[in-house]
Amino acid sequence: MRAVVYKGPFEVAVENVPDPTLHHPNDVIVKITSSCICGSDLHMYEGRTAAHPGIVFGHENMGLIEEVGSAVKTLKAGDRVVMPFNVACGFCKNCQRGFTGFCTTVNPGFAGGAYGYVSMGPWGGGQAEYLQVPFADFNCLPLPPGREFESDFALLADIFPTGYHGAVLADVSPGESVAVFGAGPVGIMAAYSCSIRGAAEIYVVDHVQERLDKASELGGIPINFDKGDPVQQIKDRRGGEGVDKAIDAVGYQAAAPGSSAAGGEQEEVPNIVLNQLIDVVNPTGALGIPGLYVPTDPGGVDENAKRGALSLNFGRLFEKGLRLATGQCNVKRYNAYLRDMIIAGKAKPGFVVSHTVSLDDATDAYVKFDKRIDGYTKVILTP
Amino acid sequence: MRAVVYKGPFEVAVENVPDPTLHHPNDVIVKITSSCICGSDLHMYEGRTAAHPGIVFGHENMGLIEEVGSAVKTLKAGDRVVMPFNVACGFCKNCQRGFTGFCTTVNPGFAGGAYGYVSMGPWGGGQAEYLQVPFADFNCLPLPPGREFESDFALLADIFPTGYHGAVLADVSPGESVAVFGAGPVGIMAAYSCSIRGAAEIYVVDHVQERLDKASELGGIPINFDKGDPVQQIKDRRGGEGVDKAIDAVGYQAAAPGSSAAGGEQEEVPNIVLNQLIDVVNPTGALGIPGLYVPTDPGGVDENAKRGALSLNFGRLFEKGLRLATGQCNVKRYNAYLRDMIIAGKAKPGFVVSHTVSLDDATDAYVKFDKRIDGYTKVILTP
Amino acid sequence: MRAVVYKGPFEVAVENVPDPTLHHPNDVIVKITSSCICGSDLHMYEGRTAAHPGIVFGHENMGLIEEVGSAVKTLKAGDRVVMPFNVACGFCKNCQRGFTGFCTTVNPGFAGGAYGYVSMGPWGGGQAEYLQVPFADFNCLPLPPGREFESDFALLADIFPTGYHGAVLADVSPGESVAVFGAGPVGIMAAYSCSIRGAAEIYVVDHVQERLDKASELGGIPINFDKGDPVQQIKDRRGGEGVDKAIDAVGYQAAAPGSSAAGGEQEEVPNIVLNQLIDVVNPTGALGIPGLYVPTDPGGVDENAKRGALSLNFGRLFEKGLRLATGQCNVKRYNAYLRDMIIAGKAKPGFVVSHTVSLDDATDAYVKFDKRIDGYTKVILTP
Amino acid sequence: MRAVVYKGPFEVAVENVPDPTLHHPNDVIVKITSSCICGSDLHMYEGRTAAHPGIVFGHENMGLIEEVGSAVKTLKAGDRVVMPFNVACGFCKNCQRGFTGFCTTVNPGFAGGAYGYVSMGPWGGGQAEYLQVPFADFNCLPLPPGREFESDFALLADIFPTGYHGAVLADVSPGESVAVFGAGPVGIMAAYSCSIRGAAEIYVVDHVQERLDKASELGGIPINFDKGDPVQQIKDRRGGEGVDKAIDAVGYQAAAPGSSAAGGEQEEVPNIVLNQLIDVVNPTGALGIPGLYVPTDPGGVDENAKRGALSLNFGRLFEKGLRLATGQCNVKRYNAYLRDMIIAGKAKPGFVVSHTVSLDDATDAYVKFDKRIDGYTKVILTP
Repeated sequence: MRAVVYKGPFEVAVENVPDPTLHHPNDVIVKITSSCICGSDLHMYEGRTAAHPGIVFGHENMGLIEEVGSAVKTLKAGDRVVMPFNVACGFCKNCQRGFTGFCTTVNPGFAGGAYGYVSMGPWGGGQAEYLQVPFADFNCLPLPPGREFESDFALLADIFPTGYHGAVLADVSPGESVAVFGAGPVGIMAAYSCSIRGAAEIYVVDHVQERLDKASELGGIPINFDKGDPVQQIKDRRGGEGVDKAIDAVGYQAAAPGSSAAGGEQEEVPNIVLNQLIDVVNPTGALGIPGLYVPTDPGGVDENAKRGALSLNFGRLFEKGLRLATGQCNVKRYNAYLRDMIIAGKAKPGFVVSHTVSLDDATDAYVKFDKRIDGYTKVILTP
Repeated sequence: MRAVVYKGPFEVAVENVPDPTLHHPNDVIVKITSSCICGSDLHMYEGRTAAHPGIVFGHENMGLIEEVGSAVKTLKAGDRVVMPFNVACGFCKNCQRGFTGFCTTVNPGFAGGAYGYVSMGPWGGGQAEYLQVPFADFNCLPLPPGREFESDFALLADIFPTGYHGAVLADVSPGESVAVFGAGPVGIMAAYSCSIRGAAEIYVVDHVQERLDKASELGGIPINFDKGDPVQQIKDRRGGEGVDKAIDAVGYQAAAPGSSAAGGEQEEVPNIVLNQLIDVVNPTGALGIPGLYVPTDPGGVDENAKRGALSLNFGRLFEKGLRLATGQCNVKRYNAYLRDMIIAGKAKPGFVVSHTVSLDDATDAYVKFDKRIDGYTKVILTP
Repeated sequence: MRAVVYKGPFEVAVENVPDPTLHHPNDVIVKITSSCICGSDLHMYEGRTAAHPGIVFGHENMGLIEEVGSAVKTLKAGDRVVMPFNVACGFCKNCQRGFTGFCTTVNPGFAGGAYGYVSMGPWGGGQAEYLQVPFADFNCLPLPPGREFESDFALLADIFPTGYHGAVLADVSPGESVAVFGAGPVGIMAAYSCSIRGAAEIYVVDHVQERLDKASELGGIPINFDKGDPVQQIKDRRGGEGVDKAIDAVGYQAAAPGSSAAGGEQEEVPNIVLNQLIDVVNPTGALGIPGLYVPTDPGGVDENAKRGALSLNFGRLFEKGLRLATGQCNVKRYNAYLRDMIIAGKAKPGFVVSHTVSLDDATDAYVKFDKRIDGYTKVILTP
Repeated sequence: MRAVVYKGPFEVAVENVPDPTLHHPNDVIVKITSSCICGSDLHMYEGRTAAHPGIVFGHENMGLIEEVGSAVKTLKAGDRVVMPFNVACGFCKNCQRGFTGFCTTVNPGFAGGAYGYVSMGPWGGGQAEYLQVPFADFNCLPLPPGREFESDFALLADIFPTGYHGAVLADVSPGESVAVFGAGPVGIMAAYSCSIRGAAEIYVVDHVQERLDKASELGGIPINFDKGDPVQQIKDRRGGEGVDKAIDAVGYQAAAPGSSAAGGEQEEVPNIVLNQLIDVVNPTGALGIPGLYVPTDPGGVDENAKRGALSLNFGRLFEKGLRLATGQCNVKRYNAYLRDMIIAGKAKPGFVVSHTVSLDDATDAYVKFDKRIDGYTKVILTP
């Protein structure tokens, strides 16, 4: 089959690779109809991880059941499904408590697995024609047949639930004020999810104008951090008060104010957003941190950053009695509910997709998405 | 001052009564700007309670601080405020846990107090020019100065929080399906609150066409119970499935199918809605019951109903593993958040108000509202 | 193999039946070491269900893995395991949210399955030498090897988690006062669980002296309902106050005060305990109802009881703002935690076991347990 | 009256000061019967804060109502009461949500007030004969009359709820494994509270033998961090696994391994415990941090520490998907429940009190407690 294969830093190719096969009675093979490129794919693409050439990318996968293992109970050929980016078993201590992003079965020695991602287990990616899905009854979310909502549903694999997870981690509740840092696809999905959850005021902090515009369209209040301390800007608008909750949808590759925004060089300040969250939230508030932080970053700005150690204003955090929650999204906790919102017309996350291109054009799409040129902000590949 | 005084069954008069005064250092006197007539006022108006003539009605009160007791800390003359219908102390065992609808201080021997309501303590009502508000720091919710959002804010005293409480009691969460029984003002506010909380599908059951139309406007799916078993209608639309959650916004005066709807005679079946809730909810689901049930109903349809004993399909409820929650709304738990949603433009509950009339026209308004004629569905009185 | 086979009302026999075999790649066969007789087995034994002769009883099962299906990941022959009485798939909508007692996969057309129980699916019982366990990775709880804690662990299949579930359903929290109705094995486990969860005062209501004595040993306060209204007795001890929470560990076969207690004839009042719960709990409190209520009871005391319709003091329940939660226990939600308490010496539920007898003596054990003679209150069968 | 007055670093005196008087209608005056010295008093005593000479110490206060303000509803002279160390109004945004440690009324410009503490508002301390208590209906917890449980009840002002708060912040639940860092009075109360909440295994980390012995008496597993990395010691005992939850009862003045333990010089490593928490907890776990961290520490080990900025292994924390919660205890959330546990005999925290001495001997008690000599670990002063 055709697949997007990592060749080395800043190089992917669409190549022929062996078709995946049923390895286990609980597997299915899915014929991919949509697979998104994720911002986190770029970590590998840019050579900032330990990924070896040869890996097939793609953890945001959707398609039709092609082949069904002998132990599978609820799926049959032709069923339309979308898979969480997390690979999960459904029965380990973490999965049974809903922490499917921290499955201890599928990636021995680590808590958490994913498709097509370095260090996340032996699972091939879905930027390809076919995908092997283990523990299929658990991992496949059924969708209505047909092609309707294709790009909305495709986002159920990762960024819609991940944005929603940010709102859950920050415990965003109806009537509250929230600050979302970062207006990339995940940040926009976080702001959108805050709105779904009834937040009264949603501030969205970024420094890319198109992103801020998108936030405004959602009813968010855009805050450009190149134009002054975003915390002060928010407090000024609120009569000196902070907000109830805040979400970090940026992570460790946070840009310094004024540094170049998209695709090019930017000065990184890995702890800047975390400390802004501490600063902007009122006492008794909560911080939700879906943005990625890593324990090993060879490209880190200093020795501490390289081992994931960041300087936090912990005294202030304590004085305010704040709480924070982190970690990758447990997609399965949310995806059926978000799917039902899409079907009912209450959510339409597909607006965040900028391009849908053929799998064969993946090489070009990676180049443009990495540089954020030609408006490439969220790309779906279709085999 | 002028006030709406209960004279006897089906009779109120606007009369001169003594002005309220500061009785306690924590009191304030509020000059009323808006006071709503509530469906529960009609229980007294119709003579179905032990209310004695002379009581001043009105528990949905809003206005400007007129006079301030010596112990009050945070309020000053001229402040615009709305009061929960519950009178609460803020420090008893129930208040401190957020159950302000069950205050044990303000109505000795009972858990819960209210303004202008039989058996709810010695507190005068606010369908008048002035109102005494005890424990004022606790009971007054500050509002922005001016006249903006007057009818939206007025609903913060009772029906918006009460509808919202229904959604909370039923634990309605994003993406879920809900059935709301009753599309009177509280039912509409409950459906509206389900939408605010992200419900995917909201079925609204009633048999008055205007109410069902209002539900549709909100994005709800109207179900007319005169046109067939509402549970079956809902299941038919859902491929045989029930819903995740259900709300009873009707209470014990539930009408039998086909009986006359508004103002006139109707056959009451006090347990019909409760059993429909049990029937319509899927196993593991939850029932929220803000609709009123009473332990003593002299007008009850039979001996059991007279003492508030109802026949429930409890075996089915257990088999499904359902949970249910009841009780009058703890308004203070929600009102600041709902206020902030109104200010931010995220909620606009005032659409449910049908008429705003002068306090002097209260007699006429009671007659029309009781009969639901001339479109009287929710009335605000302005002194 | 040898197994306990239901022959008809009040008759079981230990007979040879075919050995269970692996039917599905996710199955295991367990060689039973301990299988308890449950009070709910007596419903079938006494002929009050639709159970047909031929069924093998036993849903409280523990043993050693004998044979392993090809898809099973985490188990191997020789592993010591205990199984929840619920059979569950792990991936349906209910299982994934932790409601494993309401699995929609294992018993088509119904939410919930169990071993060896009428209407609970095609699963054989474990009062036998061997047991087929489906979805074995999900349904088998691993235990430390050896024979230690055998009777404590055996109770992890049902009554310890079920009692604990009662405390969870009533939301029993540290420092609270609780009334537990019923001091049979489940009631005792509920009281024990309240103690584990930090309850300050635990009243235990029954009318069998040995049971009340057992409650006292646990630090509970025994209340004999043959000696006067148990609600009044509790309120008298609390200066007129009720309790924060209450648990119904009795169910629909509740005995009238003064009626014969054990094994013999007793007058049933199916709603008596529910109404006592409503009466004894303070406003804002919660009721946990693990005690069984059924939608169809051919032996019910009247027409309503036969269809599971009970008269509840719902007006009072509403006035107090109570909430209640019901349903069979989702054992898997608790069993690993309760196991760890047993291993650490923090819980020792085995004190409730009165007899451990050979599987070959099951017929005699059923007779004695049904009549509660010779101190038969909780029996473990060992093949 | 006689009172403990701060004179300057390492110097307090028992002196005559003016009696407190009723300043506000909601005040009461309490005649102190017991007032504890807290470890946090030593921050002021040692001159590591901005406290000015003249302040009367004492925030753990208990006594009898002496005089009652005109607006007070529920208290009368002679009532025995204990006050949370937090001064709180009961009606501000934070108080009404239960965050009484972050009251915005009682200490203008800051969220949170306390008796007798620098920067915590104008409230005098209770290491004295009398104490002014504002918002008395809210701040006084009634106790049974007499002298029973005097030292147990005295701990309800601070360290028992604060230890309990640690267990709540870490979300410690029945059957879980927990590591408590620090076995001073708060750490011991935290471990004790974990036990109350049903934890299966409780590791307690310290390097003072008497403290570790006390932990053992409670059923905890002592871990001496002078004898090797405490995280590794815990994992070794658990077959390589970490624990479910962890509590930091140490704070920013954490001692380096091997540094002198009590009273004397010790090398501080302000972030050591936080990073050990991150290390010892399993993925998906939670950290509770009642131990004090401050935004300004003139005595900090370096420039970052001086401004409360600490280096955290945030990459690891994120990878594990951990959550953490911080802040001073909201005593009123727990104190009634903990009182009821004491009365019922389910908790007996007074075991942690080492000395009860006369107020007149306070000077000597401060010296000994500061140096932890003569077994001074928790001291109650009695006027």
